[in-house]
This record gives sequence, C-alpha cells and structure tokens, in this order.
Amino acid sequence: MALTDAQQQEIDAARSAAHQTRRPTVPALEAMLFTATPVLDHGFVRVVDYMGDDAAIVQAARVSYGRGTKAVSEDRGLIRYLMRHRHSTPFEMCEIKYHVKLPIFVARQWIRHRTANVNEYSARYSILDREFYIPAAENLAAQSSMNRQGRGAVLEGAEAARVLDLLREDATRNYDHYVEMLNEDEKGEPIDPGRQGLARELGRMNLTLNAYTQWYWKTDLHNLFNFLSLRADAHAQYEIRVYAEAMMQSAEAWVPIATGAFRDYRLGAVTFSAQMLGILRRMLAGEAVEQADSGLSKREWRELMDTIGRGL
Amino acid sequence: MALTDAQQQEIDAARSAAHQTRRPTVPALEAMLFTATPVLDHGFVRVVDYMGDDAAIVQAARVSYGRGTKAVSEDRGLIRYLMRHRHSTPFEMCEIKYHVKLPIFVARQWIRHRTANVNEYSARYSILDREFYIPAAENLAAQSSMNRQGRGAVLEGAEAARVLDLLREDATRNYDHYVEMLNEDEKGEPIDPGRQGLARELGRMNLTLNAYTQWYWKTDLHNLFNFLSLRADAHAQYEIRVYAEAMMQSAEAWVPIATGAFRDYRLGAVTFSAQMLGILRRMLAGEAVEQADSGLSKREWRELMDTIGRGL
Amino acid sequence: MALTDAQQQEIDAARSAAHQTRRPTVPALEAMLFTATPVLDHGFVRVVDYMGDDAAIVQAARVSYGRGTKAVSEDRGLIRYLMRHRHSTPFEMCEIKYHVKLPIFVARQWIRHRTANVNEYSARYSILDREFYIPAAENLAAQSSMNRQGRGAVLEGAEAARVLDLLREDATRNYDHYVEMLNEDEKGEPIDPGRQGLARELGRMNLTLNAYTQWYWKTDLHNLFNFLSLRADAHAQYEIRVYAEAMMQSAEAWVPIATGAFRDYRLGAVTFSAQMLGILRRMLAGEAVEQADSGLSKREWRELMDTIGRGL
Amino acid sequence: MALTDAQQQEIDAARSAAHQTRRPTVPALEAMLFTATPVLDHGFVRVVDYMGDDAAIVQAARVSYGRGTKAVSEDRGLIRYLMRHRHSTPFEMCEIKYHVKLPIFVARQWIRHRTANVNEYSARYSILDREFYIPAAENLAAQSSMNRQGRGAVLEGAEAARVLDLLREDATRNYDHYVEMLNEDEKGEPIDPGRQGLARELGRMNLTLNAYTQWYWKTDLHNLFNFLSLRADAHAQYEIRVYAEAMMQSAEAWVPIATGAFRDYRLGAVTFSAQMLGILRRMLAGEAVEQADSGLSKREWRELMDTIGRGL
Repeated sequence: MALTDAQQQEIDAARSAAHQTRRPTVPALEAMLFTATPVLDHGFVRVVDYMGDDAAIVQAARVSYGRGTKAVSEDRGLIRYLMRHRHSTPFEMCEIKYHVKLPIFVARQWIRHRTANVNEYSARYSILDREFYIPAAENLAAQSSMNRQGRGAVLEGAEAARVLDLLREDATRNYDHYVEMLNEDEKGEPIDPGRQGLARELGRMNLTLNAYTQWYWKTDLHNLFNFLSLRADAHAQYEIRVYAEAMMQSAEAWVPIATGAFRDYRLGAVTFSAQMLGILRRMLAGEAVEQADSGLSKREWRELMDTIGRGL
Repeated sequence: MALTDAQQQEIDAARSAAHQTRRPTVPALEAMLFTATPVLDHGFVRVVDYMGDDAAIVQAARVSYGRGTKAVSEDRGLIRYLMRHRHSTPFEMCEIKYHVKLPIFVARQWIRHRTANVNEYSARYSILDREFYIPAAENLAAQSSMNRQGRGAVLEGAEAARVLDLLREDATRNYDHYVEMLNEDEKGEPIDPGRQGLARELGRMNLTLNAYTQWYWKTDLHNLFNFLSLRADAHAQYEIRVYAEAMMQSAEAWVPIATGAFRDYRLGAVTFSAQMLGILRRMLAGEAVEQADSGLSKREWRELMDTIGRGL
Repeated sequence: MALTDAQQQEIDAARSAAHQTRRPTVPALEAMLFTATPVLDHGFVRVVDYMGDDAAIVQAARVSYGRGTKAVSEDRGLIRYLMRHRHSTPFEMCEIKYHVKLPIFVARQWIRHRTANVNEYSARYSILDREFYIPAAENLAAQSSMNRQGRGAVLEGAEAARVLDLLREDATRNYDHYVEMLNEDEKGEPIDPGRQGLARELGRMNLTLNAYTQWYWKTDLHNLFNFLSLRADAHAQYEIRVYAEAMMQSAEAWVPIATGAFRDYRLGAVTFSAQMLGILRRMLAGEAVEQADSGLSKREWRELMDTIGRGL
Repeated sequence: MALTDAQQQEIDAARSAAHQTRRPTVPALEAMLFTATPVLDHGFVRVVDYMGDDAAIVQAARVSYGRGTKAVSEDRGLIRYLMRHRHSTPFEMCEIKYHVKLPIFVARQWIRHRTANVNEYSARYSILDREFYIPAAENLAAQSSMNRQGRGAVLEGAEAARVLDLLREDATRNYDHYVEMLNEDEKGEPIDPGRQGLARELGRMNLTLNAYTQWYWKTDLHNLFNFLSLRADAHAQYEIRVYAEAMMQSAEAWVPIATGAFRDYRLGAVTFSAQMLGILRRMLAGEAVEQADSGLSKREWRELMDTIGRGL
C-alpha cells in the first residue's frame, strides 16, 4: 500500500504536467501538489487537487451582500470579519482533496468528521501492506493521572523497551498470520497453491489497529477549519495532530488570509461564558474576585484563571 | 442584480486569464468557464469553477480497490460499473461551482437539495433588481385535470392575455412600491432625502415570488446527479427543468463518461418492484398476464404497462 | 392553510390521547404538545413530537466515556461540561419535531439551516390561504443608517400609514389575482366552470413574500441550538427571532439543564481572539491599553470595549 | 464492555417504567424496547428510543399536499406511492436510536453512513473488554475466486482449525499485552502499583480489528432504509448483514407499512438501464435477442439474464 512503482510514475507524470486553466490558481499550493509530506513513521499527506482561493471567499461573500458592499473594506478585512462573526458559508466555496496514509486507529477518529467525501482502501478487496505505526521513543507516554484521555510523562528504560517490543512483535505476528490465513503474500501471490485461503473480508480482522490504511479525503474550507480546530489543538491526540499540522501548512499555502484569520479568531481564541464575562468586568473595574464569590465551580474557576494567565 | 459593469469587467478579466496548473483540467469545460448560459427571460447559469474530471472518479475508486484492481478493465467500464451499482462515493470526488440567476419560486425548490454550498444575494443588505419572470406564451399552461401538480393545455387568447397582464402589472407595481417604501431607487440612491426609508429586511416582503435572485451554488458530482435526476426529469416543473438542462450540458463537457453513464443507468432507467419483476418474468415466459391476476393495483399496473410500451 | 376543522379535530384527538410508553418522557413538554403558540399575526409554532431528554444526553456521553466515568460528577455538571467544551455529539441524541406556520421570507432564511428534515406545504399542489404578514406598528422600522442589515427608528405618522397601506393592498390584490388566474377560490372550488385555470405551479409566482406557508421541521438538539444561537440572537431579524424565542420556551420545558448550559456557554458567551486575550491580560495586569498600541483595528477595538463594558 | 450490573439495572428500571405520553406510540416496538437482540458471538442490537410511526409519514406528506390531498387514497396507498416514487422526505420524519455492540471492523463499514448521530465507546478514556469476534465454523469462508470482495466455500478440517486457532490466540495475546502495557486490568484496577502504565490512547493500537466496541446510533427512517438497502442485501458482508437483519425486525415492528413498501420497491426491486429496457420491450414483442446484437457488454448481458431468470 506504499506507493507502487506504477502509482509513483502516475504521480510523477501528473506533477510534471502543465495545463492551461482559467480557474483561480495558487502558485504556492501548486508547488506542493503531488508531493507527499511524511507523517509518523510510514504515513503521509499530499494535496491532490483544490478549488478556489482567498479571492473565492470574497467573491461568494460579495454575492450575498450585493450592491450593499460597495463601501466594504478590502478583501483581508472582509475575510477576517467573516471569520470573526462566524459567517461560514463563503468559506465553503473552497474545496481541497488530500491523499492520506494513516494508522487505522487514527482513521477511526478522523472519520467522525462527517461532512467530507472519502474513498478508503478496502481490505475486503485487497491486501494491506506490512506496515504498522510504532511510536518514536519520545512519544511513548504514560497515562496522565489527571486527565483520563491525556498523556503524562514519557516512559523510559525497560518499561519503554518492553512496550515497543510488544507493539512490534504483536503487529508483525498478526500480520504474518494474516497472510498465512489468506494464503497470499503481500503482492497478492498465492503462497501454497494447493490450499484455499480465508476470505480477505475475514482475514483482515486479525490485523492490529496500528496497521496503516489510506484514503482520499475531500472537504470544503469551512469543514477543514472545523477539523483543524479540533485536531490541530493541543488536546488532540499526538498521532492525529501531526496530520492536522501538515494540513495547516497546505492551508497556509493555499488561503493565507483565511488561515491567518482562522489562527487568530478560532485556533487561538477563547470563549468566556456569560458568568465569566461578568467576573472579568468586575476584575477590570478593580474588584478582587475569589472563586467562592464568583458563582463558578472550582473547575470553571481554574479554567478561567488559566486562560487569563493567573493560574499557578 | 444583472451583472454590473464592474462585475462584467471582473468576469472578462477572469475569462481572459490563463494560469498554469498541475491540476486535472478539462478543455471542453474551460471553454465554457465564465460564460453565462441564458435561462428563462432574465436568468442564467454559468460555471465558475470545478475540480476533477472523469479520471478523478477512477483514481478514487482505484484507491478503494487497491491492488485488487490490477485486472480491472479500463476507465469507461469502471465508471459505468460504479454508476450501475450505485457506488456513489467516487463521484463525490469531483466538485463544481455555478453562479445562477433564478426566480425566487424556483430558488425555493432548488434549495431543498441540502448537500450543497450556497451564497445567495441578500435582500436584507441590498436592493433587488426590477426583473421578474414572465412565462413565454407557449409555457402558460392550464392546471392539469389529471395530475394535481402538473400542467395541461396551453392557455390562449383572452385568457392568456389576462394572465400575462396580471403577472406583469402586479410584479411591477409591487416593485415600484418596494422602492418607494425603501425610499431608494434601484441603484440604492435615496429618492426623497427628507424621508426615512423602510428597513430593507422588511421592504423585501412586498416583492412577488417571480422576482429574480442569484446565488453561488457548489456541489459534488454525485449530488449534482441527484439534483439532475429529479430536476432534468419530465415531471419537474418547466421553470427549474430548463436550469437542469443547462447544467446537463456543462456536465457533458466536464465528465462525459460519467454523464453518459448517468443518462443510461439513472435518467433513462426504470425500477421494477419485486412484484413487477415477477410479472415481467411470467410475460417473458409467454404467459398472458392481466391486471386482475397481477397482484398490482390499477395505478401500478398502468405504470408498468406504460414502462414496457404496452400502454394504450 | 389555517388549521381546518378536520385538522383541528385530529389535533384535539391526538392531544387528548394518552398512551403508555417505556420511552423517556418529559411531562413539562407533554403539556405543550399539540398546542400552537401564536407567533406574528397569523403564524404559530407547535411541538408535534420529541425523543429524549436531559438524561439521554448523559446516557450517550457515558457510552463514550465508558468505565472511565465512574467518578464523573452528576448529570448537570456533565451536561455543562459537554456544552462548555463543545462536545456536541451527545446533544444530537435528542430530537424534536415542530409544525410551523410562517411568512415565506422568513422560511427562506430558516431553510438555510441544512441539517434538518422538512416537509413544506406545496403550492404546486394546493392553494395557499389568504393570509399575509403585516408588521405591527411598533415593528415598522426604518433602515438603520449604521448597519446595512439592521433597523433604525420606528416609522410613524403618515409614513407608517403609507407603508402599511401598500403592504396590505399589494398582498391582497396579488392574492385576488392569484385565485382569479387559478380560477379557484380559497377552498379549491372552481370560480367560473366554463374557463380553464392557470396551473397552480405557475399561479403561485404572483404571491408576495409575506404570504404564509407552513411546514413540519425536525432536527436534533445540537442543531436546534445552532439555529437558536443565530436566530434567538439580538442581530437576527425580528420576524425570525420571535419564532426562535417560542422554540427556546419549548427547549426550556424539554431539556432544562441543556438549555441552561446553552444560555450560559453559547447564547450569552463571548469569544476573544488571540490578540484580544493578550490585551485583556495586559489590562488585568493594570496596564492602560489604547487602541493605537493594541494591534486591533478600530472596529475590533470598539467591539472589545463594548464587550467588556468600556464602550461609551 | 458487556453490560455491567449497574447498566443492566438501569435498563431493567427503564424497561419496567410506564409513562403516559401524548406522542404516537407503537405497542409492537414498545415490546422490544430495552431488550437486546444477540448478534454474532458477543454483539447485540437494542432499540433505545424512537419517534413517530407509519401515521407520522402520512401526516408529513399531507402537509406537503395540503388541501390537494382531500381525495388521496388511504394511508397504505400513500406510503407505497411515496416509496415507489422516491419521495423520501416524509420518511425522514421518523427517528430511531439503537445501542449496538459490534466488532471494530464492522464498525468501520457502518460509520461510512454519514447521515446519522453516533456516540461510541472511547478507548482513549476507558478499557475495552476481553471480547473478540471469532466466526462460527459455518461462516469461515474461503476467498471467492470470482468476486474479489466475496466468499467462496466454507473452510473445513485442519485449515479451518488453524484459522480459528490463529484468530483466537492472536486476539487474546494482543489483549493480554494491551492490559499489561496499560498496567490496568479489565476493571481498570492497576496491576503493578509501582509501575506507570502506557497511555490508553496509545495502548489501544495493539488490539485487533475483531475486538468489540459499542455505540449509540440514531438515524431517521429514510437513512435507516438506505443503510438496510446496502447492508441487508445479499452482497453485504455476513458480519454486518446480521446486524441489518436484526434492525429489519425492529423496523417491521415499528413501521410495518413503510417497511413492507421498502421490501417491495427497494430491497426486492431491480433497476433496468435505458438499453436494458429497450431489450425487454423487444423480447416482450417476441423477438429473440442475443448478447451480440443487444448493445450490452457481456457482463451487463449476464446481469440482465440473471435478473429476468434466464441465467443458466
């Protein structure tokens, strides 16, 4: 499932092609087209196609505002205004398509983003590659003791070695048994011609969740930003965050103004509840507010203090 | 809301632009880009942008089938297979964006297709143009006496003249009162500087449903085909069907193989229920089947006879 | 299109019915079932059916957290946590269905919320009622001079009277011509048996945008909150906001904890950009920040000052 | 992740509860509520909640048709008409929610149905149970030699035994190593208090794709039928088809008329292309048509002959 020679030739051919088009074209993204960005130990992200640019967002917004926008300030200001006020439909007018290779447990998180188009490699039809995600030493983290879905300190020494050994051995053994049961090797050639192989749609169940799959994934810019706001966030699991970060780079090349606005007004933004805003106003007026008289729970109070930089 | 001079210049500039791209490019559709196809008396459809081509459908399908497809026959056969067996996700990998000008009552039908991206001209912000749809004489049909949502014979003579007069007069009068209430002319200039105008978001309610609006509308090829299968169908209202037909032409230019498959396996296809199939088999075996012993209702029987060319 | 006698009898029968069910049941919402809340001059909202309650949100969240949630605090805290951190999927587990009667120009805004199920009265099939929205005197506002989509002062005296006369006369005249062209009265009875009527699908185009339509509209709680966050907001047009407010009351009765969380963390919440947060921190540290050294545009600075209560 | 005692008590309590409601209520489905139907070796499907019934479909359709439907025939005829002519929106007015326990490789197919609401057990938070799907002997099929995604003969003897051994041993070993790496037992209790455990979000990657997960899954009737038309079909993989069949039973209990129409007009229906229909007409007229002069490819010809019962 790595790129085959045939696939690689096809990609190289596409990459070297130069067509004439009247469509909006973004040179910075063209430069990245058909180039795979490596992610994790065997994965990648590559942009396959795109539609629209920053100006396409403006164009769509202007249709909505019609003549009313004669006086509206320039494009950058308009895009930032749209982002700040969550006018999301103009961002839907841009579309991007990725080819992604990723571990199955990451794919399971990713697919929860429903407003996207997907074609995934099917292990009902075809044999998966002998490739598994094994974390690098610095990512082999212990369970957080504070956060049920978080990571704590990095494991080290014998403990780390034991984990890596188990992950490697189990994935490899399961894969070996997978091809044995299928009676087909990685290339799909029969191993023992005198024997029937298990149906592929059954054999795949023996694989581990760190096996790699791949898919084409296409979405519009608004939904890409929704994806990135959850997956490029510090709370996202590291193994999906690195994909999101690679995609942020392509967004940066593609729609730099919109991506800048996304960074400022969504990724880096904070939301305060009605109660929190009341407390902020009291504080700004010079009042010393304590958790006890804040009306907030201890947990919310701590979140607020962290946000405004007064945490310990 | 017709294209302003500024808009027209912008379109002309875009049309004459020639960019280099590595993306899949379709010369036949490029030739149509930025050219408005007139529809009805004041409407139009124009393709603004697109992503993908017939080969992009194949590319996405092949990722699903992986190595398993080594032997799969050539592209045309694969696309037709996908269409025949309703494997719809590869068709979602192509995307198209239209700019459409259309009467509001048509827009109300159109918007029911939810899987699309839309930016519509807003009459909260801006003033609509003095343009209304008035049917051509040959489309001025009487209510069907058979079908509650259909059309019968064309109205003629005094009756037709009366209808056309009423439509024209009412739309025009209501528009005149609209700008009077707003105290703004079509260009947005105040009529009587000494008077306040009604809020645009209120004034618009005096317009008739044949006033024209416009929007950007973007969708993927699978959902475009869903739209066309309903709206390019003979049962669709004439006023939306003409838009669908103009869009069929752009689909034909863009993805000729997929559009051919769509014509054969969906637009021109018929579906038989389990019962109908049973009857068909009996007939093919030489049996003379009557409605009475068919198990079908009279209505279904008539539908079946019409389909197989045995209607009266 | 007002409730016919037959419809009213059906509703009365449904309302007086009492079934036994094992499903989660909310007495406060049951009390509102089948009772239309009047909105505007001829519109209404009524809850037709619902699924789930506050506990269903918790139940779904607990499946996600599995055993991990043994220690999680009680339901109210969990629901508020989910809302605060935008964990939206558990809210999708509740569903509500409304029957709404509303002016067409309001329906056009409303339908832009795509994640919902809709069945609308069809004027292709049937005749609309002689009912139009005419604003009450206190809602007859002038165009705002500051905000292109807003309202300014209320119109008064002769100006107001003129607007109301025009709205009434034009809607009525157009309706009269509509039934004349159709050659059917409001009940669908032919007016002049010797004459053909225009097809209903054409005749409807003569109606004004303040004519009333009606629909069944069904959505999940997450998407209801999305709708309410835009339409119950002070920036929403009055004519749709009153519907949203009526729906807020049903949400309050149905899922009081979730609706409370929605009020605190979304309706009444504010979002600060990364830059705004930096300024806030400087202010809280006692620094006197001015627009000029804030890095914000004048517009953003004004928005920030308004939010923290330092506007003029 | 099997039902814990606490969960079971909660379900029993819900099951024995009896509330009064004015909502449409379906006794046959009420009888199934909170009762898990076993599927595969450790899985189940149970209906958790529902909204609407056959009459709710009619009610929604009648709003669309308005007065126009005075004369429309009775409910059964209307529902069958809607299904036959693919008027899908009235079916969206019914909603159902399931709790499902299923192997991960089945969940991966299932989740591709995007128009649904899902809350899945999260292995980032919690520990999965020691339960894996092991096919029953009669389902242990060889790869089909004709169909790349199909099954051939059942494996037997030593071959079958070897496959079952491998599946069992690998799943069990990997699970044992999973809890060892996490340093937590199945109940979440630490195994070796002196040692840190690997983060759960990492440890889960060692599990096999036949491990069981569970989720709440909620959808509307139209999308349930879409799911069933693909997954209750003979071409669906056995392991998901058994879930679809269990859900067909609940649909049968819930909306018997709509489900009957679905069986006749969709599950058991066939679609003929424009070309196929032409051939059928020729055959019905007594002509002997051969593949060579049919205009169909060999593959399509074979499909047609199979459908009309003339296959070998």
